Amino acid sequence: MSKVKIMNIGIVGLGLIGGSLGLDLMALNQEHYVWGISRNPETCKQAEAIASVNIASPDIGNIPDRILSQTDIVVICTPIAAILSTIAAIAPKLPAHVIFTDVGSVKAAIVEPAVNICQKYNQRFVGSHPMAGTAFQGIAAAERNLFQDRPCVVTTSVELEAVEKVRSLWQAVGMKVYECNPADHDRAVAMISHLPVMISASLIASCQQENDAIVLQLAQNLASSGFRDTSRVGGGNPELGRLMAEYNHSALLRSLYTYQQSLQEVIGLVESQQWEQLESFLAHTQCDRTLYRSC
Amino acid sequence: MSKVKIMNIGIVGLGLIGGSLGLDLMALNQEHYVWGISRNPETCKQAEAIASVNIASPDIGNIPDRILSQTDIVVICTPIAAILSTIAAIAPKLPAHVIFTDVGSVKAAIVEPAVNICQKYNQRFVGSHPMAGTAFQGIAAAERNLFQDRPCVVTTSVELEAVEKVRSLWQAVGMKVYECNPADHDRAVAMISHLPVMISASLIASCQQENDAIVLQLAQNLASSGFRDTSRVGGGNPELGRLMAEYNHSALLRSLYTYQQSLQEVIGLVESQQWEQLESFLAHTQCDRTLYRSC
Repeated sequence: MSKVKIMNIGIVGLGLIGGSLGLDLMALNQEHYVWGISRNPETCKQAEAIASVNIASPDIGNIPDRILSQTDIVVICTPIAAILSTIAAIAPKLPAHVIFTDVGSVKAAIVEPAVNICQKYNQRFVGSHPMAGTAFQGIAAAERNLFQDRPCVVTTSVELEAVEKVRSLWQAVGMKVYECNPADHDRAVAMISHLPVMISASLIASCQQENDAIVLQLAQNLASSGFRDTSRVGGGNPELGRLMAEYNHSALLRSLYTYQQSLQEVIGLVESQQWEQLESFLAHTQCDRTLYRSC
Repeated sequence: MSKVKIMNIGIVGLGLIGGSLGLDLMALNQEHYVWGISRNPETCKQAEAIASVNIASPDIGNIPDRILSQTDIVVICTPIAAILSTIAAIAPKLPAHVIFTDVGSVKAAIVEPAVNICQKYNQRFVGSHPMAGTAFQGIAAAERNLFQDRPCVVTTSVELEAVEKVRSLWQAVGMKVYECNPADHDRAVAMISHLPVMISASLIASCQQENDAIVLQLAQNLASSGFRDTSRVGGGNPELGRLMAEYNHSALLRSLYTYQQSLQEVIGLVESQQWEQLESFLAHTQCDRTLYRSC
């Protein structure tokens, strides 16, 4: 992790992401000041106890004015659906020129309205999407180095200095930052993150359609690593799956249609028993897969 | 691993599966006699050197008659496409009543013709599908305990004693054996093993359809564990993928059609923005996934 200039940072939402961000920022530079907000008073206590924040409260009114007035960046780490209302609620309590950012997995639906809210207070908004996580949730799951070597999107903005500050925040906790516009971000994550959830859930649903009880039971008994891996994200948090679809539905639909065509191509090859062509199709996917970062 | 009665076992094809089977059988009971056949003389030497077999040769004519004549079970561990021709080639050299089995991942296309070949020599065939493996191939990848706690299908047959012997062979190396008819096996593995390959390959292919170079590059940079896991089996051995489709194409097509319907259901929910229903669909898949052994 590289050094980052001393900053005063607010984290709103002290779950896995917010809590882990605080841990790294506090450990990284003892002179950072980190304040936090969580709806749950217990979470606030825990965040203070593990040194994820210097101070936390459910009510921004309890954070001393001298601290709020010095704030450089506020990172909104709530679920997507609460990002805009959270900014609207706390912006009046924060100084002009403060920079807001978020950690939501969609950007177009957030960035423009967030910029509009912030402009009213002469504040700035730059969207972020740090792509890190574990299977766990909540402050109890917060861990050091969660962000290390993971990709993070920061959205382009005319506010160049704000973009630089947000970029350096994520770089400070070890992330590889990619700058792009919200629409490109949403198309890319629709392809590699939201589409897989729908594909994977459809696999589980289609297997459960088997109406021969003996075959279904056998399939469940024989399911091996191939099924496990392909079905993993389809067995994830339903609320999260719904939210990504809801907030990114046009990019997701586009990906789903393209996927339908690729699937139809495979089905056509199997129907017409074009085995050479199927092998060639699979040789291309084997090769193309290596172009993707995590593969 | 349970004790198995002293047997004389032939293994034809000394790759990952055949080589690992020999290692376990030899270690399990020093009084077993294991002979092996591989096309490659080097493989035969290696199999002998690591004690995967007592003796191996590319030519069954080099295995002493007194050994061949005492053989109880011959396990054909070649690729699917070579199973029937291998049995036809070696059956005349082996005693009446010998039991053949195989390790192929499809059963209907193998079992009936294999039974017919064996009947000519008054020999017996029982199909097997031990579901074990690693990402590696060949005798160099052979390992102890590869089969431990993994499922194995043994196909039903009127030859009850032969079924019992084949079942006890796989149980001896630690497998959990499921007996079923070839058609049920093929439908079950189409669902949980062959369909995932096609789904997963279609994901990779559809992402590569993105014609905006910036978005494609971003998708490749951002690809995370969700993409990695969902695309894994679609990036596997193209020849293996082709063979499973070729030898199991009617069951695979059936699974692909059912999958298309489930996918269409998801697309319909996203198109009509029925978010509650999508969340409910995903809650079902989250719950149903836990019914599958490896999940």
